[in-house]
Amino acid sequence: MRKRIITISRQFGSGGRSIGKEVAKTLGIAYYDRELIEKVAEKTGLSPDFIAERGEYSPSKNPFAYSFVDRSINGMSLSDYLYNEQRRVILELADKEPCVIVGRCADYILRERTDCLHAFIHASEEVRAERIVKLYGETNVEPKKRLHDKDKKRAVNYKYYTDQEWGLAKNYDITLDSGVLGIDTCVKILVELAK
Amino acid sequence: MRKRIITISRQFGSGGRSIGKEVAKTLGIAYYDRELIEKVAEKTGLSPDFIAERGEYSPSKNPFAYSFVDRSINGMSLSDYLYNEQRRVILELADKEPCVIVGRCADYILRERTDCLHAFIHASEEVRAERIVKLYGETNVEPKKRLHDKDKKRAVNYKYYTDQEWGLAKNYDITLDSGVLGIDTCVKILVELAK
Repeated sequence: MRKRIITISRQFGSGGRSIGKEVAKTLGIAYYDRELIEKVAEKTGLSPDFIAERGEYSPSKNPFAYSFVDRSINGMSLSDYLYNEQRRVILELADKEPCVIVGRCADYILRERTDCLHAFIHASEEVRAERIVKLYGETNVEPKKRLHDKDKKRAVNYKYYTDQEWGLAKNYDITLDSGVLGIDTCVKILVELAK
Repeated sequence: MRKRIITISRQFGSGGRSIGKEVAKTLGIAYYDRELIEKVAEKTGLSPDFIAERGEYSPSKNPFAYSFVDRSINGMSLSDYLYNEQRRVILELADKEPCVIVGRCADYILRERTDCLHAFIHASEEVRAERIVKLYGETNVEPKKRLHDKDKKRAVNYKYYTDQEWGLAKNYDITLDSGVLGIDTCVKILVELAK
């Protein structure tokens, strides 16, 4: 079956977003990352920056912290409210048109559909550290610590909402090491599979 | 860099062996699975059947059991002795010629080489259950239980000798769901990447 929708989960600094953008461009289909955030912002009234940060990252490394923060909307934590709204937007987008969706547990949210290709992009710490310094510049936090913190938060967020382990091969149709294979090859493989 | 050697790790029933065989055939390179067992048998005097079973599967689901069984060769357990000999054969083969090697922690054993492509093949329980019944017939053990038992032993064996988690995307250059993508597509992707 042709894959109308491609979800891309990715380690921080692995180039997953660039790959997703390029795949969408090559296939001539929509790309949802920042655009998804804008849609969720419209629906919820929350600020795009808040959604960007909290829609994919747990507020704390401690998953239990979810219960104690932001209890504010209809008895739901703000995190749960945001997840639900994000989920609704992702389901609507998938119904509407072929697209690439990056992050935000989209693989899990769309798991029942058979017209999706679920990919996970990763790379070694060395490759990713170099990439984030090149893309986002130096900060006073050591690059490997930045990678570790961000991925830890993504993993906790994913585990909390999906009850699955982030980065386990069996959750994805394909996983690719962008450092070993190269960004262009990853794009080419995903484009071929989607056709 | 061209990938001379392809290691294939696989869930039981995922078609990883068939994929490996076809990749080797298409690339016109050697395929080591049973042939590797024969080589280890020559070196060790152990029977091929014993090697086939114990060279890849822990003797028990309990990793601690390793310490208490088979203490017989130079103070090494038979399992450790077999692992060491298998390791030596795999390193020799990789030096000798381009090849496909299935299972036996070859991805970990050859991790320092840059001319290897490390792949992991998996599929859903439903797809694999159907496949093993078709290939190996029914037994008095329920197919899903057979899958679970065999993979559990492989995971324990892998963890014991590599200290890594079996099936975690980051341990491999590429992982593929053979049920979703199809055996032929998996072969095609690996052949392309090796070229």
